[in-house]
Amino acid sequence: MVRRMADTLGLFPVDPDGDPVARSLVNTGHDPSLDQVEAWFNGQADLKERFAEIFRQSIDEVLDGQRTGRYDVNQLAKTEKTYLGTKVEIICQAAYELERGRRMDYLVAGHEVDAKFSIESPYKQSIPREAVGEICLLLHADDHEGRFTVGLIRAIPDVLQKGKGNQDGKRGIAASGRSRIRWLVRDGKLPENLLLSLPDQVRNSIFNAVIPNKRRADGQRRTNQLFALVQRRIIRREVVLAVARQDDGPKRVRDARLHLRLKGILILGHQGEHPRICRDLELPVPSKGQWVSLRVVPDSDDGGRPTTIINGVSYFAACPSDPECVGPERY
Amino acid sequence: MVRRMADTLGLFPVDPDGDPVARSLVNTGHDPSLDQVEAWFNGQADLKERFAEIFRQSIDEVLDGQRTGRYDVNQLAKTEKTYLGTKVEIICQAAYELERGRRMDYLVAGHEVDAKFSIESPYKQSIPREAVGEICLLLHADDHEGRFTVGLIRAIPDVLQKGKGNQDGKRGIAASGRSRIRWLVRDGKLPENLLLSLPDQVRNSIFNAVIPNKRRADGQRRTNQLFALVQRRIIRREVVLAVARQDDGPKRVRDARLHLRLKGILILGHQGEHPRICRDLELPVPSKGQWVSLRVVPDSDDGGRPTTIINGVSYFAACPSDPECVGPERY
Repeated sequence: MVRRMADTLGLFPVDPDGDPVARSLVNTGHDPSLDQVEAWFNGQADLKERFAEIFRQSIDEVLDGQRTGRYDVNQLAKTEKTYLGTKVEIICQAAYELERGRRMDYLVAGHEVDAKFSIESPYKQSIPREAVGEICLLLHADDHEGRFTVGLIRAIPDVLQKGKGNQDGKRGIAASGRSRIRWLVRDGKLPENLLLSLPDQVRNSIFNAVIPNKRRADGQRRTNQLFALVQRRIIRREVVLAVARQDDGPKRVRDARLHLRLKGILILGHQGEHPRICRDLELPVPSKGQWVSLRVVPDSDDGGRPTTIINGVSYFAACPSDPECVGPERY
Repeated sequence: MVRRMADTLGLFPVDPDGDPVARSLVNTGHDPSLDQVEAWFNGQADLKERFAEIFRQSIDEVLDGQRTGRYDVNQLAKTEKTYLGTKVEIICQAAYELERGRRMDYLVAGHEVDAKFSIESPYKQSIPREAVGEICLLLHADDHEGRFTVGLIRAIPDVLQKGKGNQDGKRGIAASGRSRIRWLVRDGKLPENLLLSLPDQVRNSIFNAVIPNKRRADGQRRTNQLFALVQRRIIRREVVLAVARQDDGPKRVRDARLHLRLKGILILGHQGEHPRICRDLELPVPSKGQWVSLRVVPDSDDGGRPTTIINGVSYFAACPSDPECVGPERY
């Protein structure tokens, strides 16, 4: 609070590297403002899940799979990678309904906090000169590893890399400063990027169902391929959009259900009988905007396989050796 | 085609400023590839309307009004302004279902085309070194003026600003090169940015209906204010989202209808009787995802005002002097 008052009153010159308050903090290790910001975040419900969604949503929006068919941050241009940090900052602010700071990005528990994202590592955020001495929310997500971290640090010069930093004077966290990060989430697991996780061969088989200049028909074919090739796994709306590359993902899913019925493949969502059928067949149960598929065969009672009843008929999870049978008409 | 073959075969050194084909083009004024690209665009239905939507959508997405409450590109950070060009390029590609180029952004009629956006002027796109000699789609939109332009140019050195360009070696179109732009849309009108167009006082009165940490209730109050204060004008879904700052814009509109009924304010959409009521009351007729509001009074037959019948009762467009009357319950 002293520091903020001092800022407001203009008592100290704006030279955070020499800021006497920040400097005293490093000597005493006492930082009540940082304590309060940390306590505020730790008091939020579902902190880990919310940060996970913030990163997933940010990456998905910048990939813009629906328009570009991209699924991998390595497919982003440099401009887009830079912007990803901005998107994380925006979505984080909205998710926690944070007020805008006067000098930094946010006001958290009454304290100025700057949000800094790095796609590279938990420590390689670029701290600009104007954030030196400030509380920084250190954000990092690695979609290839499926992991994320969130921490807080008072970005005093002692914790920053030495030297002048990059061309804009921005510096990451020094190895010696890492122990001073207060982790909010150290071992976060990102919601799955399904397309990224697929073997190249499967992914190519989905995306290559392409006839130039026939994107609309293609979108349906690719969606059919997706649900035919990727069974027993939760498929999120964003995945369908990136594969179909058109607005109406749910419509493509409904049509895929009709197409794949001929192969006995069920596509199950979150409504009606679907959750029950999923549980019967030992599938993960989709939430709203998610689906899961499985090939089934009727009347194949070997006593060991999961089974379900649809419109009075028994269906069993199919083995590769089972012949292709038409699936139920309505479910 | 000669140039592309030459590129493919690697016959010419990669030094486009000295490219003999590009140079011969400027001398003869003959450029069949550019002709074909121009003809391709001009053969597209609703060219002007589609570009207008591309720009509107791009600006709205980067503003991200739903999460940030922003409505003015001047509120964007530098990173976001840069990214706006990327978003325009992505949405343009999707809108025209263009294939990706091998060297440049797009393949149009078989020719490599690079998309370049400028928020500043029709001529200040930053043409990078690698696009010199290439066909460029010059994009520009000014949300404050509500205008946009789209043109094509062969970015030969003669049409570019002299010198080394900015720090990345990027150059705009020289004044002497402007006459060589083949305009696809020279006088485009952007779909209205309603919030930007409002007088400050009205906009503040909408946005300031804020109680800290009560965003959800606030969103409804701000939405009510929007429809109460901005009558007779089409209000797009994006405007509602930026004002409400939450996911479910249509739900906020439905609830605003209940709140504003007490003041006799109708909120009309695109369904059911609404288009007829709009026409009766001489209002613009909303498309899907749009609304328009108007205060009405019953039984006030002065013979001159537009009138409509709702559930058997006559309602007239209200004058400021009319007393506040409760509006129809269902419509």
